Amino acid sequence: MPDSPRTLLESAGVPRDDARVVADVLSAADARGIEAHGTATLDALLARLRSGAIDPAPRGGRKTVRETPTSLVLDAAGGLGHPASREAMERTIGKASRAGTAFAAVRNSSDFGFAGYYAMMALERDMIGIAATNTARYALPTFGREVLLGTNPLAFAVPAATEPGFVLDFATTTVQDATLRARRAAGEPVPDAWSRGDALLPLGGHGTETGGHKGYGLALLIDLLCAVLAAGTLGADLSLGAADPYPAGVSHFFGAFRIDGFREPAAFKADMDALLREHKNSEKAPGYPRIYVAGEPEYETSRQRKEQMV
Amino acid sequence: MPDSPRTLLESAGVPRDDARVVADVLSAADARGIEAHGTATLDALLARLRSGAIDPAPRGGRKTVRETPTSLVLDAAGGLGHPASREAMERTIGKASRAGTAFAAVRNSSDFGFAGYYAMMALERDMIGIAATNTARYALPTFGREVLLGTNPLAFAVPAATEPGFVLDFATTTVQDATLRARRAAGEPVPDAWSRGDALLPLGGHGTETGGHKGYGLALLIDLLCAVLAAGTLGADLSLGAADPYPAGVSHFFGAFRIDGFREPAAFKADMDALLREHKNSEKAPGYPRIYVAGEPEYETSRQRKEQMV
Repeated sequence: MPDSPRTLLESAGVPRDDARVVADVLSAADARGIEAHGTATLDALLARLRSGAIDPAPRGGRKTVRETPTSLVLDAAGGLGHPASREAMERTIGKASRAGTAFAAVRNSSDFGFAGYYAMMALERDMIGIAATNTARYALPTFGREVLLGTNPLAFAVPAATEPGFVLDFATTTVQDATLRARRAAGEPVPDAWSRGDALLPLGGHGTETGGHKGYGLALLIDLLCAVLAAGTLGADLSLGAADPYPAGVSHFFGAFRIDGFREPAAFKADMDALLREHKNSEKAPGYPRIYVAGEPEYETSRQRKEQMV
Repeated sequence: MPDSPRTLLESAGVPRDDARVVADVLSAADARGIEAHGTATLDALLARLRSGAIDPAPRGGRKTVRETPTSLVLDAAGGLGHPASREAMERTIGKASRAGTAFAAVRNSSDFGFAGYYAMMALERDMIGIAATNTARYALPTFGREVLLGTNPLAFAVPAATEPGFVLDFATTTVQDATLRARRAAGEPVPDAWSRGDALLPLGGHGTETGGHKGYGLALLIDLLCAVLAAGTLGADLSLGAADPYPAGVSHFFGAFRIDGFREPAAFKADMDALLREHKNSEKAPGYPRIYVAGEPEYETSRQRKEQMV
C-alpha cells in the first residue's frame, strides 16, 4: 500500500495537524471531480516543500497581524496555504457566529487548493460562505498586453434544505491555464474568448464587446480584496504562472455571515430549494437534457464516488 | 424653466425627502454618463407612480422586518427603490462603523437606479461598499430556454488615495437589454454571446465553452442574496422585462466593511493607487491607447461634466 498524502506531507516536515488539513482539501477536490486541485498536485507540493519554496513549518507559526470581533488578518509566514486558509475560515465563522458576520484576509501564503472548500465550511452553520485567492499571473487586463492578473477564483456557498447547497466557485478568467494547454495539446481549436497568445483572457474575453471588462474588473477586485486588504504581495511582484504555477506570496480572502440575521434559516433554505428547483425544472434548450445550478455537477460526482466506495 | 425632477416627483405624491434622493440618484447617473439610469428614466418613473405600480408614499412607510447590529431587512412596502436603498445603505454603513461590517436586504422595492451609487456611499467612510439588485426577467439559465433571470447588477466600491476609487458596477448578463435593442435598431450584427432570440445570455455567453455558466452562477447568486435573503419575490414571480422593465417587487442587497479592521486606511489606499497605476501604465495591446480600471471612464465623464458646468 502506497504512503498516504498525509504521511508523505509529514515526511516532508509538515506538522501532523497541517498535513491532515492538506490531505483533506486534496481528497475533497478529488471527490468533487476537481482533480486539477486534488492529489494529482501532491508531487508538485512535496517538491516545493523540499526546495524550501514553501516552508513546511514556519518558525513561530502563523501570525495574527490584526484582529477585531469582525475582522482578521493572518500572516501565513510562507507556509502552506491550506492550513492557513482553514484556520482563517474557522476563525471567520467563529467571529460570525458571535457578531453575525466577519471577514479575513491572509498574506504570505501559498496555493490553497480550491476556493469552494473554504466557502462550504459555512454551509453546516447556516451561514453564507465566501472565499477567494489571487494566484500566479496568467491573464491580461482588458486592452493590455502585460500578464498582470491571476486566475483569481471566487467562491460563494449558500445553504439549501434538501437540495445540495449552491456552491459557485469559478476562476475569473474564461478558463484555467491547464484547460488552455490541454486543448492545445489535443490539437483542437481554442475559442477566441480564452486567450491571446499564451496569456489568458478575463471572463468575457477580449475587449469590451462581449463583457471582457467585467471579468477584468472581477479579477482585479479579487486582487484588492486579497492582497491589498492583507498587505500582501501585489501585482507584478507575484510570479508568472508559466514559470511558477504555485507561487508563495499569494493572499486569500474569506467571509461568512449568518442567515438568521435576515430570516429564519429553515424558511430561507425552503425558498432556496424552491428557486433552485424552478431553474432545474425549467424548459431546456434543444439538445441539452439538463440545467445545472452552481455546485450541482460536483455534488453529484462526490455522491457517485461515495456510493462506489461503499 | 422646466420643472425639476424633484418638483415633478413631489407633484406625483412623493414626499420631499424621498424626491430629493431619487433626483440625486438620477443626476448622479447622468453625471457619470450612465444615461440609461438617469433623468431619461424619469417619465417612466412618473407614469408608474401615477398608475399605482409604485406607491409614492406607502402608508406606514418602510418597515424594518429584522435587525441586528450587523444585519437589516427592510420592506420597501411597494414604494420607490431609490430612497429605500439609500436608507438601507446608510443604516448598513452606520452598523459597519460600529461593528466593523454589516449587510442589508430590501424587499418589495422597485428599480433603484444604478448599483454603484449605493456602493460608492462607503468610499468616503474608508469602507468597501457592496450593492446588488435583482430586476425584471430578461435572461436564460445556461442550457435553458425560459427567461428566469434579471440583468442582476453587482457593484463593489473600494477607496483609493489620489486615484479615483475602484468602482466595479456591472450587469451579470453580457449586455443590458437596451444595448441589444439599440444594436438591432441600428441594423448591426449582434455578437453571439449577447442573446438567443430576444432573451439575454449571462456574462460568458451560451453554454459552458466560453464561461457562460459562470455568468449564470453570478446572476443566480445575486437573486439569492437579494430575494431569498429578504424573503422577496422569487424567480418567475418577477415580471418579464419585455413587458414591464421596471417592476415593483424587486429586492436589493447591500454591504459595507471597514478597511481599518484589516490595516491602516492610508496604507491601504496608497497600495490601491500603486496597483491601479501599475495596471493603467502597463503595456497596451496594439491599437488600444488606454487601459481603464473599473469606474475610471465614469469618473472621467463626471469630472469633465463638472468642468463644463463651471
